[in-house]
Amino acid sequence: MNLDYIKPDNWSIIEEGFNADNVKSSESIFSIGNGAMGQRANFEEQYSGPTFQGSYIAGVYYPDKTRVGWWKNGYPEYFAKVLNAPSWIGINVLVNKEPLDLFTCKEVKNFRRELNMKEGWLSRSFEATLPNNIQVEVSTKRFLSLDLDEVGAIKYQVKPLNSDAEITFQPYLDSGITNEDTNWDDKFWDTLQITIEGEKAFIEAKTMKTEFYTCTFMESSVFVNNEKQDQKPEIKRESNAIAFHYTVHVAAGETASIHKFGGYTVDRKLERSQLVSAAKNVLETVIEHGFTTLLEKQKEAWSKIWEMSDITIDGDVKAQQGIRFNIFQLNQTYLGKDSTLNIGPKGFTGEKYGGSTYWDTEAYCIPFYMATKNENVARNLLKYRYNHLEKAIENAEKLGFKNGAALYPMVTMNGEECHNEWEITFEEIHRNGAIAFAIFNYYRYTGDFSYIPEMGLEVLIGIARFWQQRATFSEARNKYVILGVTGPNEYENNINNNWYTNYLAKWCIDYALENIEKVKEGYHDDYLRVSGKTKITDKELQEWQKVADNMYFPYSEKHQIYLQQDGFLDKELITVADLPQEDRPINQKWSWDRILRSPYIKQADTLQGFYFFEDHFSIEELKRHFDFYEPFTVHESSLSPCVHSIQAAKLDQMEQAYTFYLRTSRLDLDDYNKEVEEGLHITSMAGTWMSIVEGFGGMRVKEDMLNFEPRIPKEWQAYSFKVNFREQILKVNVSQKETTFELEGDTDLDIVVNNKQITISPNNLIKV
Amino acid sequence: MNLDYIKPDNWSIIEEGFNADNVKSSESIFSIGNGAMGQRANFEEQYSGPTFQGSYIAGVYYPDKTRVGWWKNGYPEYFAKVLNAPSWIGINVLVNKEPLDLFTCKEVKNFRRELNMKEGWLSRSFEATLPNNIQVEVSTKRFLSLDLDEVGAIKYQVKPLNSDAEITFQPYLDSGITNEDTNWDDKFWDTLQITIEGEKAFIEAKTMKTEFYTCTFMESSVFVNNEKQDQKPEIKRESNAIAFHYTVHVAAGETASIHKFGGYTVDRKLERSQLVSAAKNVLETVIEHGFTTLLEKQKEAWSKIWEMSDITIDGDVKAQQGIRFNIFQLNQTYLGKDSTLNIGPKGFTGEKYGGSTYWDTEAYCIPFYMATKNENVARNLLKYRYNHLEKAIENAEKLGFKNGAALYPMVTMNGEECHNEWEITFEEIHRNGAIAFAIFNYYRYTGDFSYIPEMGLEVLIGIARFWQQRATFSEARNKYVILGVTGPNEYENNINNNWYTNYLAKWCIDYALENIEKVKEGYHDDYLRVSGKTKITDKELQEWQKVADNMYFPYSEKHQIYLQQDGFLDKELITVADLPQEDRPINQKWSWDRILRSPYIKQADTLQGFYFFEDHFSIEELKRHFDFYEPFTVHESSLSPCVHSIQAAKLDQMEQAYTFYLRTSRLDLDDYNKEVEEGLHITSMAGTWMSIVEGFGGMRVKEDMLNFEPRIPKEWQAYSFKVNFREQILKVNVSQKETTFELEGDTDLDIVVNNKQITISPNNLIKV
Repeated sequence: MNLDYIKPDNWSIIEEGFNADNVKSSESIFSIGNGAMGQRANFEEQYSGPTFQGSYIAGVYYPDKTRVGWWKNGYPEYFAKVLNAPSWIGINVLVNKEPLDLFTCKEVKNFRRELNMKEGWLSRSFEATLPNNIQVEVSTKRFLSLDLDEVGAIKYQVKPLNSDAEITFQPYLDSGITNEDTNWDDKFWDTLQITIEGEKAFIEAKTMKTEFYTCTFMESSVFVNNEKQDQKPEIKRESNAIAFHYTVHVAAGETASIHKFGGYTVDRKLERSQLVSAAKNVLETVIEHGFTTLLEKQKEAWSKIWEMSDITIDGDVKAQQGIRFNIFQLNQTYLGKDSTLNIGPKGFTGEKYGGSTYWDTEAYCIPFYMATKNENVARNLLKYRYNHLEKAIENAEKLGFKNGAALYPMVTMNGEECHNEWEITFEEIHRNGAIAFAIFNYYRYTGDFSYIPEMGLEVLIGIARFWQQRATFSEARNKYVILGVTGPNEYENNINNNWYTNYLAKWCIDYALENIEKVKEGYHDDYLRVSGKTKITDKELQEWQKVADNMYFPYSEKHQIYLQQDGFLDKELITVADLPQEDRPINQKWSWDRILRSPYIKQADTLQGFYFFEDHFSIEELKRHFDFYEPFTVHESSLSPCVHSIQAAKLDQMEQAYTFYLRTSRLDLDDYNKEVEEGLHITSMAGTWMSIVEGFGGMRVKEDMLNFEPRIPKEWQAYSFKVNFREQILKVNVSQKETTFELEGDTDLDIVVNNKQITISPNNLIKV
Repeated sequence: MNLDYIKPDNWSIIEEGFNADNVKSSESIFSIGNGAMGQRANFEEQYSGPTFQGSYIAGVYYPDKTRVGWWKNGYPEYFAKVLNAPSWIGINVLVNKEPLDLFTCKEVKNFRRELNMKEGWLSRSFEATLPNNIQVEVSTKRFLSLDLDEVGAIKYQVKPLNSDAEITFQPYLDSGITNEDTNWDDKFWDTLQITIEGEKAFIEAKTMKTEFYTCTFMESSVFVNNEKQDQKPEIKRESNAIAFHYTVHVAAGETASIHKFGGYTVDRKLERSQLVSAAKNVLETVIEHGFTTLLEKQKEAWSKIWEMSDITIDGDVKAQQGIRFNIFQLNQTYLGKDSTLNIGPKGFTGEKYGGSTYWDTEAYCIPFYMATKNENVARNLLKYRYNHLEKAIENAEKLGFKNGAALYPMVTMNGEECHNEWEITFEEIHRNGAIAFAIFNYYRYTGDFSYIPEMGLEVLIGIARFWQQRATFSEARNKYVILGVTGPNEYENNINNNWYTNYLAKWCIDYALENIEKVKEGYHDDYLRVSGKTKITDKELQEWQKVADNMYFPYSEKHQIYLQQDGFLDKELITVADLPQEDRPINQKWSWDRILRSPYIKQADTLQGFYFFEDHFSIEELKRHFDFYEPFTVHESSLSPCVHSIQAAKLDQMEQAYTFYLRTSRLDLDDYNKEVEEGLHITSMAGTWMSIVEGFGGMRVKEDMLNFEPRIPKEWQAYSFKVNFREQILKVNVSQKETTFELEGDTDLDIVVNNKQITISPNNLIKV
């Protein structure tokens, strides 16, 4: 499968020509979402070809009973699954009683699909010849409202071309849906009640076990040549579905169309008893607006998002399309309105990986949200982990830790671990460090220390306790070691002294100690509350300090580099360039043991540490480590190329930086990893943003000031981005010739460009 | 659960008193088998309490679709399952139309179960008060014939005690059985046809997928006070079952009884079309004999087995009972008649672990079979692996190996791998070494070199090729290393340079090279055939030699010991004695990561290497290694205590040796690992035999001679065993005072006792 069918375009994702082989990939690529819900780009009308149906409601999940080959102590009993929700988009279409089904049509011409990222809608048009030889022209448009995030709208038009025709529209709701990803083929939804009121219908259903109550709703109206038809639909009710059947007669060349509004109300936000009435209210509002006005509002809402978060790239349409696709999908997934939500690795585009929250959020997504939204959005993401602290402590207890040590889960929906590979669940503990790092990063960027006394300190204490207990003393080395871990490079399992993990562990302890002191000095009441709750003692803190001060780091004198882990140099160090092409990707071609004993790195590991803590190392050290590890990195994780792009840019290796940038930004559009059918790689999209802003733009925050070291790939004429830094909005434009800075607002801003401090005044273009 | 309800007895396993909590454990303990089939000690009559039903036919398995949490490349698609076969033992009993069911009886008195190991039968007797207040005395006897290994016999007697009664016997066959261990609740058996002929019934059924055709059969006759009743039974036929209903009336104190013969004919041995007629023939034969004669023959057959394989222990009834139980179960499981069969870790006593063949056979079972049977039995076990060589080569190819490298599976029924944990399936490769070692061991013991040119050499070449390819060169160490393995100690995963594995790998290559030379010199035709088939070249052999000569072995200068693996000394070296009791067994109390990073050893690993290659090391070296590793060994594998017992005996640490002996010999009788309900640990029972013969007896074969260094635990007065050494049978009797040797036959035998050579003449007791 090659996705070269996606047309380059600055603002849209466009597919031309119908190919059933592309349907599942396009269902992922053309996904739409509004932060509260989202859906794959499934067709409204019946489709009998291969398809992966998906409509998802944020925060609504199912705890699927764990399935394993051999049970290991500590495995979670349940694995939270992203849950395919009842479908509301369906509109079956009959032409002279023959179903319109692109898979069975005699001919499909001029098929075109567009995801308009600027305005936030999805459209589709085609001409099809049905088995009964009627030719129809079809065009559809669909969007999920940003303003009213319970609702979406569909306009569906059919024009018979070669004959008069009877057109039947059958809009429906269906709660008899299934999940692709189910362990035991359990039933996930229980339909409670179906209600009809005029041309509105409502299905109340609840999820099994988690008991999320939802109301899936719709309203339809039918038009002929834009004239609303008054006919009452025929009602078809089944146990898990409700449909309205409308039939109209149109002459050849005339247009029959249907407007359908639908969506969900959910008891995560409303009283259970209010779900139907809330749905009615939403429908009343959108009916009053009508499709066209609602679409106008959609454009406005997206325009505001783009105003702040757009990145322009001149002279490279594929790069431009790539970055906008990433920014668009991130905003479709998470808008920061709700601190109980997070950013799932597949967002609303697929079921794979289950759970909504990985360390991706802290390591990759927070910088994007900090710079393109107000600081409250990032604060909400931190608060999400604070709210899960108790569960993280329980999770650590299950693994034998004590005294309030916290181990955040690898994958979670509600704070509970829901992953079950021992090598990841129990051993990929570096995730705990990313959660502490995000607190540091948030404070560094926003200057908002208040989060730490209020919430962050408790998290830092739980994490420091974990590391102190997890490290063990090696008599042989006279150092503390951390045995049996998996680092970010998941192509190693159960290794000893992963440098990244050890470094992060030491840093977490030091950072917690530093903040205990700060809070003790500056926030006495908070200190009393937190120390009372956590019962930290001086003796305990001394234990922490001892571990942090005596942590072991594997190092090669010969290569003058930190070793990814003990024994790395024992491997057969054949570079990726010398691997036969037919062996790649190794995760599809090699058995697991072969991958494990190879030197190949799935994603930045040691270099991830150099990214987090770049001030701790000289540029020469970075260069040595980059030159050593990059040749063994296969980037088979979506989270890898962005970090390498940033590091390559820092080292002025711009060709490499550009190659990695393309790979990260078009990972899904070009389907590098041959798996886009399963959904998009949402969290890594934030890494793409970092590649430009931090990589090419060289943006850092040092001592409360924005720093830049702008670079530009030779393939580009110019690029620009905006950042919101402590409520001041700065636009940066980098061309081959110069870099310009423009400041909004009315206060000056001091920034550092290429190590020289300059002052930017509002509305005054500064060239450097 | 504590199994202290088993009564000490020299020749029988006895349970007294009925306790429903013990039923599943006793079903395992009292299992019976005859090498061709076997069964758990399920009750004949209906039982509504907790039970684990199992009847197994040797070599009849089902490839169950693999179940995993996350799929990893290289996993086998199917996992061969030990298959619960159609049941033939069932006899429902009604007393005045009330079902006899021990779980619902008002009272059960004088319950007694006996497994008579001397004569090879299982009996049960009890007095029960049924819900209808009728008291009955019941006694049953059951055995699986060694002579006619398709058939078993049951005698079931009921005597009403307090009233005349109508007794209904309902002997039945049932092919609607299920497996406890099924991944997807698939149906495993397909019933084809039910045939009735007089009082004989036959169910033909085949296994799904593997298509093993079987005929399960029965014949019954009913007696009152030993007088055969002529009544024709009522026939009850269902889709998967057939029953005969016999009703007799007996006065209080009179006895109603039924004799039932049943069993299986299988297309592994017969034409499919002959299954029913073969079953009829077998039934004719046993009917002609009758129950009593058949039982006499059973006693004779077991007497022959005991004649050769019995071990006596004087003065310690629990030790005596333990060793006989082990020898009995081994003989019930495998008699060496069929080179397509092997010794499953649970034999015919449970489903767990699936597959029939582990490295247990080569490492633990072959010595027992070599010494207590004729050499052909061990040769058949070697041939089994020769027949699987092609599959082992395919298995290695799946993992990326080439050129005829062979990796034998971890678990198999038919030569294909059927285990799916990457850390075991792909990495526990030391199993390959045990297969080569068994060839060495067989030749050492039997002196029969012919196996090597005929078959063994090809196996040795495939194995040597695997090791040469699996080792990689470490520039850093300037040695060959073996990365990413799991050793015999499965409480370590994905470790580097497991000493046992590296040592075995080097030895395998050296041994293959040595035998290539021997065959080249002495068996020219075989050499041409094998070298033609395997295409070995001098250049390749030089590559092997290079790896063998430059293998890396982790070593601690400080402790003067080989390290179990790289980095072992980095662990927190707290001994087992210092572990809190509530933390044990760690495999039930600790999460997997915690086990992995601990120093605790599940089973002998480095010490297993010292056992295989004891001549390579001095006694001082053994002592250092034993003293270092034993304190970290938790023996949570059934295969561990026997090796430690042998080593402790060798080091004259007899208290330890005795403790380990008791643990290995009564592992199941005393349920050390709290899992006997799932079945017995058959393969480790051969280790118990080794603990006495090799451990206490100090028996070794050196330079074609039997060597002994007899020791005796202070708890025993004397012990004796017999060995068949190259068709000479030697009986050894060790008491606190002296050791005696007695030789059967008519030829002298030179042996070495405590390093002194002596000559034993037949039928002449020698005291040492």
